[in-house]
Amino acid sequence: MKFEDIRAEACVANKMLPQSKLVDMTFGNVGVFDKERGVFAIKPSGVDYEKLTPEDMVIVDLNGKVVDGNLRPSSDTPTYVEIFKAFGVRAMVHTHSRAATAFAQALMPIPAFGTTHSDYFYGDIPVTRPMTADEIASEYEKNTGLVIVETFKKLNLNPDEMQAVLVAWHAPFVWGNSGKKAVENAKALEICADMALKTLSLNPSAARISEELKDKHFLRKHGKNAYYGQI
Amino acid sequence: MKFEDIRAEACVANKMLPQSKLVDMTFGNVGVFDKERGVFAIKPSGVDYEKLTPEDMVIVDLNGKVVDGNLRPSSDTPTYVEIFKAFGVRAMVHTHSRAATAFAQALMPIPAFGTTHSDYFYGDIPVTRPMTADEIASEYEKNTGLVIVETFKKLNLNPDEMQAVLVAWHAPFVWGNSGKKAVENAKALEICADMALKTLSLNPSAARISEELKDKHFLRKHGKNAYYGQI
Amino acid sequence: MKFEDIRAEACVANKMLPQSKLVDMTFGNVGVFDKERGVFAIKPSGVDYEKLTPEDMVIVDLNGKVVDGNLRPSSDTPTYVEIFKAFGVRAMVHTHSRAATAFAQALMPIPAFGTTHSDYFYGDIPVTRPMTADEIASEYEKNTGLVIVETFKKLNLNPDEMQAVLVAWHAPFVWGNSGKKAVENAKALEICADMALKTLSLNPSAARISEELKDKHFLRKHGKNAYYGQI
Amino acid sequence: MKFEDIRAEACVANKMLPQSKLVDMTFGNVGVFDKERGVFAIKPSGVDYEKLTPEDMVIVDLNGKVVDGNLRPSSDTPTYVEIFKAFGVRAMVHTHSRAATAFAQALMPIPAFGTTHSDYFYGDIPVTRPMTADEIASEYEKNTGLVIVETFKKLNLNPDEMQAVLVAWHAPFVWGNSGKKAVENAKALEICADMALKTLSLNPSAARISEELKDKHFLRKHGKNAYYGQI
Repeated sequence: MKFEDIRAEACVANKMLPQSKLVDMTFGNVGVFDKERGVFAIKPSGVDYEKLTPEDMVIVDLNGKVVDGNLRPSSDTPTYVEIFKAFGVRAMVHTHSRAATAFAQALMPIPAFGTTHSDYFYGDIPVTRPMTADEIASEYEKNTGLVIVETFKKLNLNPDEMQAVLVAWHAPFVWGNSGKKAVENAKALEICADMALKTLSLNPSAARISEELKDKHFLRKHGKNAYYGQI
Repeated sequence: MKFEDIRAEACVANKMLPQSKLVDMTFGNVGVFDKERGVFAIKPSGVDYEKLTPEDMVIVDLNGKVVDGNLRPSSDTPTYVEIFKAFGVRAMVHTHSRAATAFAQALMPIPAFGTTHSDYFYGDIPVTRPMTADEIASEYEKNTGLVIVETFKKLNLNPDEMQAVLVAWHAPFVWGNSGKKAVENAKALEICADMALKTLSLNPSAARISEELKDKHFLRKHGKNAYYGQI
Repeated sequence: MKFEDIRAEACVANKMLPQSKLVDMTFGNVGVFDKERGVFAIKPSGVDYEKLTPEDMVIVDLNGKVVDGNLRPSSDTPTYVEIFKAFGVRAMVHTHSRAATAFAQALMPIPAFGTTHSDYFYGDIPVTRPMTADEIASEYEKNTGLVIVETFKKLNLNPDEMQAVLVAWHAPFVWGNSGKKAVENAKALEICADMALKTLSLNPSAARISEELKDKHFLRKHGKNAYYGQI
Repeated sequence: MKFEDIRAEACVANKMLPQSKLVDMTFGNVGVFDKERGVFAIKPSGVDYEKLTPEDMVIVDLNGKVVDGNLRPSSDTPTYVEIFKAFGVRAMVHTHSRAATAFAQALMPIPAFGTTHSDYFYGDIPVTRPMTADEIASEYEKNTGLVIVETFKKLNLNPDEMQAVLVAWHAPFVWGNSGKKAVENAKALEICADMALKTLSLNPSAARISEELKDKHFLRKHGKNAYYGQI
């Protein structure tokens, strides 16, 4: 089997989605990118997670063309192409996890309210602007990717430090250094969104975490001075 | 066994209800309609889901008369008769799923806040007007069906594009092209209601999804130009 | 074994509590009353549900004296004595189920917002007045029962039609025609409380269900004109 | 194996965390202190709960030095050192349980709204002041412990009567007379936080439980006049 490594990594990560309670029905998928060969493995559209095999994964290049595989790739494929091209990340996840999606529907970023958030994400989780009628009418999924890239440019965000985004009126897209890590980040995003909802319910004008505490928690887990875990 | 096909389809779909976490206790049931023969199979009243067999299903005609079966049909039967007669749909589900029921109790439609909603339902989920004292006093369950039909006429809704309704102070009724699909729609309804509750908690005056994005998501999954799934 | 019937009924019902997700840790218990003999079987205090056997149940009379059994009865025993004496019901449940307890802590009745509520309870679930310093200082658990009885008298409630009450700053007490039915009522109470919380979150001044619809739903399931279930 | 008793007690208690649904991923740990030998057993950093063995536990002294064990201790270790030194408690738990963390993020104490709370905690669960830039810049985890101790001094709280605290913008730290009891207290804290969130959603200016009822419930379970359970 060709592209066995990314097929296997994508298959395992897709199967993690329902176990992680991040997806209802078939609302979600994972893609794993091989930067050197310029292709990624992605879930076929509308197939149940428990039936997925590595063979079912669809291999797509950075022009969005299917290179290998018998099934149709996820309808999110053109979005993933733009993110892999612009950010060069290893793995992408898209879910409609409920609390994070509520922020996307309210067109609100998820505020960085505490250390749980800062252990994973450096600052507020950004939300894109709503897409225009033109962007929706033609090449909608590709334009979804482009509006994500535009958001990161406008806010001057580094995709290595901020591995998640909310698409307005839609839902989160999340990435990471492996298929498994991207799913873990998507799980962390949902937990932070749930806690942020509760925090705002207690105090609608709650203050964000201080800059110093945000830096402390993010940097003890990420980058060259990290000291968390068994290293 | 007569009517074996609709008995089997209704039995399987009824058993999906507790697994889907849509019903508590015995608050819910599914009916499956055979348009050609003009009869439907429905859950017997007050029987536990796990004990149901296809034989237990009750076969009812469009006058609400039991045609086949030893048990009493669900008390919702006269409501289903009116919906099957007016809308001609294959399968109906009634649940008291919690977030959707909260909207019914607040006499509020579920606003179309995002793409998750628009992937399933074309616009706000409508809520009926409260029933009058007269409608409640006589033929209450039949009148529940009639007020649903009235709501669709008044709002000029197409039951193929809007496969759910909230009955005021009561709960949702949902339909679909098969028993299984009706239950899936009922699950999608509850997810959308839960997300809408959270969206309104973040911003009580949150704006609805744009018309263009609503159309895009509904039409890529429904109708002749659909391109989602393995087709 | 003496009192085997009420011991068995109480034991089964107590074991239903953690399965029903109504209790966390050991916050809850069931008692089953034999009106003719004037005694009831109740859970021993602070014992895990899964280890309970019928032998562990404690038999108590209407003076609160242990008549049979080796363990100490639940600390709620004197409360149960007053309810069994005043209302003559078959079985009592006490839980700290979360949504119902939130209403008790907010000193608010649970409003009758819909048919789910009216299928089980006839009108708002009442909340007692806060207990006085004197009532707390001496015979606290007995006085908890007396304040429940006082609440029913003051509001002119019939304990056959309203099988639940919230004790202010404390939690719900619920009853029914059998141990199993009392637990089912406690489950219905928690579901209604959860839906009422969500309804109030959507509209803090939501209107209650109409009198006619309330009557219709309660009376189709209770009393001599009931027509729900297999009869 | 040296320190077998505290290793075993800490291992069992750490394994209780995911079962109790108090922790997501690896956000939480338990430490068990042997006051006589002046050392405690703590979870290694970033290791999955299900794989933990007593051998994996790390033994640390009150200078924060590893005395026995091959893995790196939890990054919370210097916090635990300060608490064990100042309060002399048997066992500590740290989680990011969601409702309690929301209060920590909102910089709000958890109000004592009812008897469930008072059965476990004597008064409001305190929240520390935010830590200063200096406290974060150097010896952050140690200073987290010191700000907890400062909070108890300032509020004149007794760590035997108040076995939990919220660290501002962070999460709860909880203790108890054994590893198992500390986890039980952390579970009770999360339940009380969840109920308090719901109580405040019903009435943002809800009154606290009366002093008399608070005393009654706390003292019937704690101290020399307790009469709850099998004694």
